[in-house]
Amino acid sequence: MRFASSFFDRASQALNRSPAFSKLIVVFAVSSGGIVAYADAKSDHVAESSQVSGKKKLVVLGTGWAGMSFLKNVDASLYDVQVVSPRNYFAFTPLLPSVTCGTVEPRSIVEPIRNIVKKNGGVKFWEAECFNVDPVKKKVHCRSNIGTNRDGNGEFTVDYDYLVIALGAKPNTFNTPGVVEHCHFLKEVEDAQKIRRSVMNCFEKACLPNLSEEERRKNLHFVIVGGGPTGVEFAAELHDFVTKDLAKLYPTLKDLVRISVVEAGEHILTMFDKRITKFAEEKFQRDGIEVKTNFRVVKVTDKAITMTNAATGEINVPYGMAVWSTGIGTRPVILDFMKQVGQANRRVLATDEWLRVCNCDGIYALGDCATISQRKVMEDISEIFRVADVDRSGTLTLKEIKDVLDDICERYPQVELYLKSKQMKNFVDLLRDSEGNPLKESKELDIEEFKKALVHVDSQVKMLPATAQVAAQQGNYLAQCFNKMKICEEYPEGPLRIRGSGRHRFRPFRYKHLGQFAPLGGEQTAAQLPGDWISIGHSTQWLWYSIYASKQVSWRTRLLVIGDWTRRFIFGRDSSCI
Amino acid sequence: MRFASSFFDRASQALNRSPAFSKLIVVFAVSSGGIVAYADAKSDHVAESSQVSGKKKLVVLGTGWAGMSFLKNVDASLYDVQVVSPRNYFAFTPLLPSVTCGTVEPRSIVEPIRNIVKKNGGVKFWEAECFNVDPVKKKVHCRSNIGTNRDGNGEFTVDYDYLVIALGAKPNTFNTPGVVEHCHFLKEVEDAQKIRRSVMNCFEKACLPNLSEEERRKNLHFVIVGGGPTGVEFAAELHDFVTKDLAKLYPTLKDLVRISVVEAGEHILTMFDKRITKFAEEKFQRDGIEVKTNFRVVKVTDKAITMTNAATGEINVPYGMAVWSTGIGTRPVILDFMKQVGQANRRVLATDEWLRVCNCDGIYALGDCATISQRKVMEDISEIFRVADVDRSGTLTLKEIKDVLDDICERYPQVELYLKSKQMKNFVDLLRDSEGNPLKESKELDIEEFKKALVHVDSQVKMLPATAQVAAQQGNYLAQCFNKMKICEEYPEGPLRIRGSGRHRFRPFRYKHLGQFAPLGGEQTAAQLPGDWISIGHSTQWLWYSIYASKQVSWRTRLLVIGDWTRRFIFGRDSSCI
Repeated sequence: MRFASSFFDRASQALNRSPAFSKLIVVFAVSSGGIVAYADAKSDHVAESSQVSGKKKLVVLGTGWAGMSFLKNVDASLYDVQVVSPRNYFAFTPLLPSVTCGTVEPRSIVEPIRNIVKKNGGVKFWEAECFNVDPVKKKVHCRSNIGTNRDGNGEFTVDYDYLVIALGAKPNTFNTPGVVEHCHFLKEVEDAQKIRRSVMNCFEKACLPNLSEEERRKNLHFVIVGGGPTGVEFAAELHDFVTKDLAKLYPTLKDLVRISVVEAGEHILTMFDKRITKFAEEKFQRDGIEVKTNFRVVKVTDKAITMTNAATGEINVPYGMAVWSTGIGTRPVILDFMKQVGQANRRVLATDEWLRVCNCDGIYALGDCATISQRKVMEDISEIFRVADVDRSGTLTLKEIKDVLDDICERYPQVELYLKSKQMKNFVDLLRDSEGNPLKESKELDIEEFKKALVHVDSQVKMLPATAQVAAQQGNYLAQCFNKMKICEEYPEGPLRIRGSGRHRFRPFRYKHLGQFAPLGGEQTAAQLPGDWISIGHSTQWLWYSIYASKQVSWRTRLLVIGDWTRRFIFGRDSSCI
Repeated sequence: MRFASSFFDRASQALNRSPAFSKLIVVFAVSSGGIVAYADAKSDHVAESSQVSGKKKLVVLGTGWAGMSFLKNVDASLYDVQVVSPRNYFAFTPLLPSVTCGTVEPRSIVEPIRNIVKKNGGVKFWEAECFNVDPVKKKVHCRSNIGTNRDGNGEFTVDYDYLVIALGAKPNTFNTPGVVEHCHFLKEVEDAQKIRRSVMNCFEKACLPNLSEEERRKNLHFVIVGGGPTGVEFAAELHDFVTKDLAKLYPTLKDLVRISVVEAGEHILTMFDKRITKFAEEKFQRDGIEVKTNFRVVKVTDKAITMTNAATGEINVPYGMAVWSTGIGTRPVILDFMKQVGQANRRVLATDEWLRVCNCDGIYALGDCATISQRKVMEDISEIFRVADVDRSGTLTLKEIKDVLDDICERYPQVELYLKSKQMKNFVDLLRDSEGNPLKESKELDIEEFKKALVHVDSQVKMLPATAQVAAQQGNYLAQCFNKMKICEEYPEGPLRIRGSGRHRFRPFRYKHLGQFAPLGGEQTAAQLPGDWISIGHSTQWLWYSIYASKQVSWRTRLLVIGDWTRRFIFGRDSSCI
């Protein structure tokens, strides 16, 4: 209701505080639904930062999907919450490809963190970059990256009792020379803004007099390296922008434009179902978007991109603009932190299933900067047997197994996944004798038989994808854990401890996949929904519109995004070089 | 109707080309009025650049108010029109102060030049900067300023038969040291965007831990140098932004903010009526905006602004951000051109009353980069007498004077202004005998008496202000001249030539002042309307809204600006640092 009360403020101000308006009913009819907001005359000003004495210091690094979701859901009255991030806003990153071509404006997908945590009074925010985490002294070292007008070097430290690391990842260049210097990335709002300017500059460059046709073609060759969802969506957006908007304004250039997607693998969109991949490749072919699969980029200079392929060998492709979107790498501050906590030999920061960084006290990591290292059943098999064998008989009855089954399934989600993959309904189906026949009720298993039944279960351990969905769910999960920290201390709700005694305090994090979209341009989208449902076409585009609108973090951004879509629908995309 | 037909395209595309939609009635209800657009199924694509053979080359430099207004109105089928400008868009500059604080988004006030000239098919646009005009060879030298990825140095030349110089002006620093390095200007869209980021950075800086209160106050001291309409409007916008939006998000900082307007003269807004100046100064005092009149800035460093005043001497004022808005200076390329055409000793490029650059063939200059040097009556007094004295009697009868009066008033607008200033109705009132009594009908004037009557007339010669209004009217005027160039060759419509014979081809340019606004914040605006009408307050703010909306260059920007105002009204201004 904030916007409503704030609206009232402004309305009464504009109407010169007429007393007749001291109460006001505001009706907004938005999109398919409507809300009725009853706004009182007084707007709720943020209370001064509450007394922090006695509260534990909870420091959050980062304001991306994970950080935002955590901050939105955590009860800030229980802790002294401090946030450090180089960006004072949250960006709705799934719409970044739309920002690159002006379908959506950058301001429409960002919301100041202070606005998001406003009702969560007392959260302190500092616009700075964390450059070092010290888990021994329980400090983070930060540096303000604002301007040069600042006194001193802008460094400061923050103490913590609990640390939530949600720093995200950086683009992965695979150390390909020239990428950082000459390619655009697409991770931040600024990247999208730069790409937009760059596309327009390519067109203006190609327009200039005294250019050969070859030079014009070079300037209008747009190369996207990486055939993942981001790269493909950008290619589709760019194609729409060129054919629907720019072709009218640059009629002499429209036939010189070339868009190429370079992919090292066999296909684009490999994380999707094959039907979607096939549809996307065929649509791109119809649209004239070149898909170069099995090509690996080895070098980028200011004039050309060098790529290799088994058939053609090394080729040099002149280009006007290149976007690099081949996946993510670990940030230096995280690599440095990993060395300190004995994870130097790993590629990504590992946490347990409760998002706690292994071997650290009070440090949590979530989102793209971390990965959950799921405990293997086979590592714990003896302990599982021991826990289940309540009567210490050395064998397990079916009843004993059934008693601990829920705990095991909760602690080791791969067991359920394995059953599902084998189309088994029940754990008991796993238990067969040496001839492969189902066990009788009375049969007791010894440890070897128990091991044998579970030996392939761990093949179902899966890494979670580095998506906004995962990060947001992790943020929410961790916030709930922090909110019920006190209660769960006394009444733990998690599964039995396999190594150790008693129960875990919380249930481990479980990811619930809600589906994924791949917008393909021309008002067509492909979607892979839970349960391997596939949906492709114009209707899916409308599903995409509704879901992306509903997932916005505030009413402001929701209305702005819908407004942008409408604006694009009526007037097309703007081609001003700003 | 372009937007309507384009809307149809998109609608039918999205709805998968349903035949029922092959004709469509679109109703837009906008602001106070409404338009009904009937859109046909086919959108009008821009015709290929027409054959240029035989047409004279008309080159336009600049796409500001003057250039845009010229391009919008000139009949591009008569000439081979080429436009050179470093910006491929037109910006509605009077809304720039609103952009600095996010009341209006930058994209909402810009319109691509190609869109504006689209119906004017065949206009060629080149995004480049003109760095040299060669009036002898009739060439302009241009340099593309796009990126580094361009082959060669990006230079090219353009031949012209007619050249329209509308390059605008640059901010005037009066060579004050440190201004360029440390101050923001407010002339371009980019300037406004930088100021917006800078304001937010000042707040984020002041928030950081480990700062003394003095440092926080320094970071939150916003200094505006120059008390003209731009500086005052920015100060008012900033004050609104701080009190209405930022105070809620930065509750600990709101009392540390200080906004100062530094003005070298006695008062701010000196170009306005005294009542407006007084109201503005009093309102600013109530709002807590410090107005430092009679202070001259002599130096700016990264930490402080040094200013002097007769009473206090030199003082050093620490600041967080400074905006320099003290008037305009001449661009280097214009200064260079002035040297070539014998105007080296002048401050601004001079044109005659037909906007032709003096001593040049086929070169016109308009907008802020030029000034009209109005011919004095006293310089031409003997010729005027000669022309009027049809019967060569050596004296003028009243009839003879009345016969040429219209031509004289058209050629020398100061005559009319002088009559108005003396509250005289008629030219005859000027003619008095040596005792000051009105002349009899039969009286004939000799040259000395005629001179005496007109001796003070030239005191009314006035320089036109450097405003958007003047530039736009000049652009329109010049476009009309170009459109009727052929007809007027045969049937000149201008006044009698005083030196020379026959008539001038065109009527000279006449500026029609439509009034000026000074928004003062808090939904209050002051306006000085023609006929010395003064209007101040909330109702004037609504007048401002309607006039600024109606003056937008396209329906797209009009709807976006209205949308932005509505958005600000409901949700406030965004404070994300992007």
